[in-house]
Amino acid sequence: MKAEQLDVRPREPVAPRKATRLGRHGRVRAVIENVRPEVDGGRYPVKRVVGETVWVEADAFAEGHDTLVCRLRFRHESETDWIETDMIALGNDRWGAQFPVERLGRYRYTVTAWVDPFLSWRSDFSRRTDPADIEVAARVGSVIVAKTANRALPSDATLLREAGQFLARATDPVELRHAALSAETAALVARYPDRRQAATYEKELAVTVDRSRARFSTWYEMFPRSASPQAGRHGTFADCEERLPYIASMGFDVLYLPPIHPIGRTGRKGRNNTLAAAPDDVGSPWAIGARDEENEGGHKSIHPELGTLEDFRRLLEQARSHGIEVAIDIAFQCSPDHPYVAKHPEWFRARPDGTIQYAENPPKKYQDIYPIDFGSTAWPALWEELESVFEFWISQGVRIFRVDNPHTKPFAFWEWAIGAIKARHPDAIFLSEAFTRPKVMHRLAKLGFSQSYTYYTWRNTKQELTDYFTELCRGEGREYFRPNVWPNTPDILTAMLQNGGRPAFSARLLLAATLAASYGIYGPAYELLEHEAREPGSEEYLNSEKYEIKHWDLERADSLRDLISRVNAARRDNPALQNDWSLMFLAMNNEQLIAYRKSTPDLSNVVVVVVNLDTRHPQAGWLDLDIEALGIDPAAAYEMRDALSSERYFWNGRRNFVRLDPGMGHVLCLQRAPQPAGRA
Amino acid sequence: MKAEQLDVRPREPVAPRKATRLGRHGRVRAVIENVRPEVDGGRYPVKRVVGETVWVEADAFAEGHDTLVCRLRFRHESETDWIETDMIALGNDRWGAQFPVERLGRYRYTVTAWVDPFLSWRSDFSRRTDPADIEVAARVGSVIVAKTANRALPSDATLLREAGQFLARATDPVELRHAALSAETAALVARYPDRRQAATYEKELAVTVDRSRARFSTWYEMFPRSASPQAGRHGTFADCEERLPYIASMGFDVLYLPPIHPIGRTGRKGRNNTLAAAPDDVGSPWAIGARDEENEGGHKSIHPELGTLEDFRRLLEQARSHGIEVAIDIAFQCSPDHPYVAKHPEWFRARPDGTIQYAENPPKKYQDIYPIDFGSTAWPALWEELESVFEFWISQGVRIFRVDNPHTKPFAFWEWAIGAIKARHPDAIFLSEAFTRPKVMHRLAKLGFSQSYTYYTWRNTKQELTDYFTELCRGEGREYFRPNVWPNTPDILTAMLQNGGRPAFSARLLLAATLAASYGIYGPAYELLEHEAREPGSEEYLNSEKYEIKHWDLERADSLRDLISRVNAARRDNPALQNDWSLMFLAMNNEQLIAYRKSTPDLSNVVVVVVNLDTRHPQAGWLDLDIEALGIDPAAAYEMRDALSSERYFWNGRRNFVRLDPGMGHVLCLQRAPQPAGRA
Repeated sequence: MKAEQLDVRPREPVAPRKATRLGRHGRVRAVIENVRPEVDGGRYPVKRVVGETVWVEADAFAEGHDTLVCRLRFRHESETDWIETDMIALGNDRWGAQFPVERLGRYRYTVTAWVDPFLSWRSDFSRRTDPADIEVAARVGSVIVAKTANRALPSDATLLREAGQFLARATDPVELRHAALSAETAALVARYPDRRQAATYEKELAVTVDRSRARFSTWYEMFPRSASPQAGRHGTFADCEERLPYIASMGFDVLYLPPIHPIGRTGRKGRNNTLAAAPDDVGSPWAIGARDEENEGGHKSIHPELGTLEDFRRLLEQARSHGIEVAIDIAFQCSPDHPYVAKHPEWFRARPDGTIQYAENPPKKYQDIYPIDFGSTAWPALWEELESVFEFWISQGVRIFRVDNPHTKPFAFWEWAIGAIKARHPDAIFLSEAFTRPKVMHRLAKLGFSQSYTYYTWRNTKQELTDYFTELCRGEGREYFRPNVWPNTPDILTAMLQNGGRPAFSARLLLAATLAASYGIYGPAYELLEHEAREPGSEEYLNSEKYEIKHWDLERADSLRDLISRVNAARRDNPALQNDWSLMFLAMNNEQLIAYRKSTPDLSNVVVVVVNLDTRHPQAGWLDLDIEALGIDPAAAYEMRDALSSERYFWNGRRNFVRLDPGMGHVLCLQRAPQPAGRA
Repeated sequence: MKAEQLDVRPREPVAPRKATRLGRHGRVRAVIENVRPEVDGGRYPVKRVVGETVWVEADAFAEGHDTLVCRLRFRHESETDWIETDMIALGNDRWGAQFPVERLGRYRYTVTAWVDPFLSWRSDFSRRTDPADIEVAARVGSVIVAKTANRALPSDATLLREAGQFLARATDPVELRHAALSAETAALVARYPDRRQAATYEKELAVTVDRSRARFSTWYEMFPRSASPQAGRHGTFADCEERLPYIASMGFDVLYLPPIHPIGRTGRKGRNNTLAAAPDDVGSPWAIGARDEENEGGHKSIHPELGTLEDFRRLLEQARSHGIEVAIDIAFQCSPDHPYVAKHPEWFRARPDGTIQYAENPPKKYQDIYPIDFGSTAWPALWEELESVFEFWISQGVRIFRVDNPHTKPFAFWEWAIGAIKARHPDAIFLSEAFTRPKVMHRLAKLGFSQSYTYYTWRNTKQELTDYFTELCRGEGREYFRPNVWPNTPDILTAMLQNGGRPAFSARLLLAATLAASYGIYGPAYELLEHEAREPGSEEYLNSEKYEIKHWDLERADSLRDLISRVNAARRDNPALQNDWSLMFLAMNNEQLIAYRKSTPDLSNVVVVVVNLDTRHPQAGWLDLDIEALGIDPAAAYEMRDALSSERYFWNGRRNFVRLDPGMGHVLCLQRAPQPAGRA
């Protein structure tokens, strides 16, 4: 299907069904409103992963005092029939129910409700005391029951007619009362509700269901060209294969490679982003260019020194055997050497002098990069070509894409492209690398990105972390914005890491890995504590790997490798750490100690994390745990086992003492069968 | 227009305009979302009165870093052209602007925004430092300016062309910079924006504009049949005329009369709601019936003992001359004698034995009342007839309707009927008498009722009052739900009034009159401290006026008349007390003393109210006033004048001492030119 033919308009909610329109006879109809979850009035889907549930609430009510029946309806988009489940009255005209999402793709849900004549009559009847009234009311009920019989299967119809006839003829108030309130009759009638006047919520809301890795993932970013064990040599995909056991041993399950395409020569940047590249400078992988003078390069091509497409596919396969999935970087921009520039000059913005405008954000200039003009008059062909880049890599076996700077391209492009790709490949995962204004980041998440970079990178204090993660895990955005938090990236070496030493690296890692279900590090820079900035005040690395090949000594004694392995093992072993929504901050009487807990919905797995944010001094304090909510006996000791140190702590009651060295933490797993004896 | 032909479906928001759809060339387009105020996604209008403004906010942003222009559009529904006003950037991609509503009826508003190429270019240009860049950028700018000239009026076009040519040819960076950033050129270009890619919010939102009495009104409910100065005589409209000076002297501006129609004889209730009426029992005015055996009665008819239609019209006129508007009670229900019953049996629900079902809420029975079956198959004729009841009284000069129990009739009926009437008579005001579940009350307010009864009647403690009025004045419902608060009604004599003595009557009156811009009392029962319940635990009055004629001694020495007059005069003299939204509770270190302030938007009028909720003991405490926000010099004394006692208090700083007798209060008006000397 061509983009030109596609309807690139945003998906509108299904045409309103007039939930409140009068029926043919103006009968009482239910009102259904304020349905949650609902993103922007149903304009965007919420997100779940396979195996989760969607808890739906709605206000439903009608004029007067009649009894309502309220049902949640849901279906996978590929099915036409709705499945229904009764909603429970939560009080104040609010109703709730949940449904499971078991298949990839998209589900739809909505709410239907009707005033039930039988239940309304029965409720009135139960309050009647006057014998004369009871008889008249029984006659009224007999008509309702008889009408129900007309909708029933033959065997039920017979029973219903009998019940109706009794109500129509009997005179003894006690017998009538017994018959009117009979549970058997109520159950029979409930099978055949009169739904001609049912109101259905005016929108069919949607859920995008991803695979579980969209919610829980542990990323390792690595430049393949630096993967050679030999200094000075350009790394290859084969070298990356050799590196896999190291990465797997640390517990990562996504290996993210910066762009693997040929790098342009025109305007190539030298080391430390200098304008004049030396002949042996390798350039930035984000300046995607030509393979060489003869062969075409571009976004579907592989940098010749990394290897071949076959080598790449073998890396994917080898990674898979280590439980690792390879994610690639999609950066829609071109070096001046990119084949698009010669073949499709109409896809770039020309300046009045006829030259193409390189990327800039005055006074910054990116002479090695031409931005693509998404608003080109030739946009349909351009958009199709760009979408085909994803398709190409999907055909090679890639299913995870980290998308570079999506916020500088049209929202409509992403909504169309991701929508089209996910319709064909519902297992595809897209990570939005947009460090920009909050509403733009949210918009990208709403329109389809599976995960999003966050401001975690710059949230350091207890208050900042508490506020930010409360917003992420409790705010309305949680329905569509899945955080993927990074303590560093090749572009961002924070002041905290520059100045905080090893304790800063340790604390920032522990926080990322336990606050969020998805996190990543840029390695080996991270585990090797790379912390020198290009210049004071800059967040750029000195001798940044973006512009040169680095050689890393992975066996260095000060490597954080062991800590990373332990925390990632804790993540793997504790389902509590595999979700974002259960995060709850705990009171702790020390501003340098941050404490929180995460859990599974059934509380069978509870993890309490405490991190010392102070990078220079040990800190101690009293932690307050809500043991009542966790079902812990306040009179008995309970065991907390530290997943980092394997130590066992026996705690008592709500308040317990914690002491931590600079930047260190506890990842304490509640042991549900506490040992009777042990250290205090 | 017949109801049958009317489209009784709820008004849907205007069809989405695809605010985010790509333009012809896929250019960057603004996203507009999260527009406020907006009720239920634009399904219902917000409410204002003539002379108010509507402050509108919206999120507006686009991908990338271009500069946006954002405008608020508004128009009276009778106009076709939009008026536009620039919105101000409030930070975090939020924009705001306001518009005045100067005419009755309905206004529409929406938001439009576009990426402005000139402003984007200018912003980039201002950050450029490289001379070569400046020249190229100037050439780019010259094209934008030249294109603008093509849209301009001739004189402006000439100037723009000159500016464009300069940018196209000059080479000196300093001169180019000066020309590019020229304020004159910017102002010229701003007159002719390129709006081809403008995005407009997908909905046109609505404001219902009422007259000011919809927001600020002071109600006095009175049974006209008890208005005779002579005990034992049936009161008349003429007696009501005699009562007007008394009502006006207390400062009321709405006189609300319970139903003035003939009362049915069949099933008529006796005194204290007894089943068997004595021959001389007058019955409940809500049991609307026949005039007499020969003459037709019903909802367009007047109780013969009250007078004639001419008498009624003269009462309206006399009331007007006292600054009082008469409100009547519309209770859509019938006594068995009502002419509808004989003429239109199809408008009532028959029981299996053929009799009509009287009103009941088991075990309660209302044998004197038949409910109307709004779901009758003959509903179109029924609905039209009921709507014509309003039209009839409007033709007599009535514009305020207190609607009895609207929550037991279909929402769709009210939305249609009120919508139709207000389209013809935008000065009509409808008060919803629904004491029911919160969401039902809100729905009635959303669909068109101008004012609503509230739970104030049962909110007694400082915490209850603070919570409830914070919800009313700060919650989202404030956009459509205008509270009208009543300390008593003929149906509700609260335990507080039964047991609290005169201090309870005083406190409940002061609170009602100063917490809400609209309030009312049922008199003379209120000012004469009527407080005996029919039986313990009941909220019904003993010897309720609903079932008999009362004779009131208005001159009784213990009447609250003087206090009522003073507080209503304070309401009239202080615009601060004429709005709901400015209410702010003030800290006070005594749980029995409640304190709050209200103000005009410009703070020229500020009123601080303190009420002693304790009906038995004097209470004292320190009140905390936010003098900084009010622009009061913390170093100088300021005068607070009590509108109740006329006493002057000279206060200093934030904290001041207050002492009040049981149930008493201060209504303290800040004097903006404080006197230098006086009592402390």
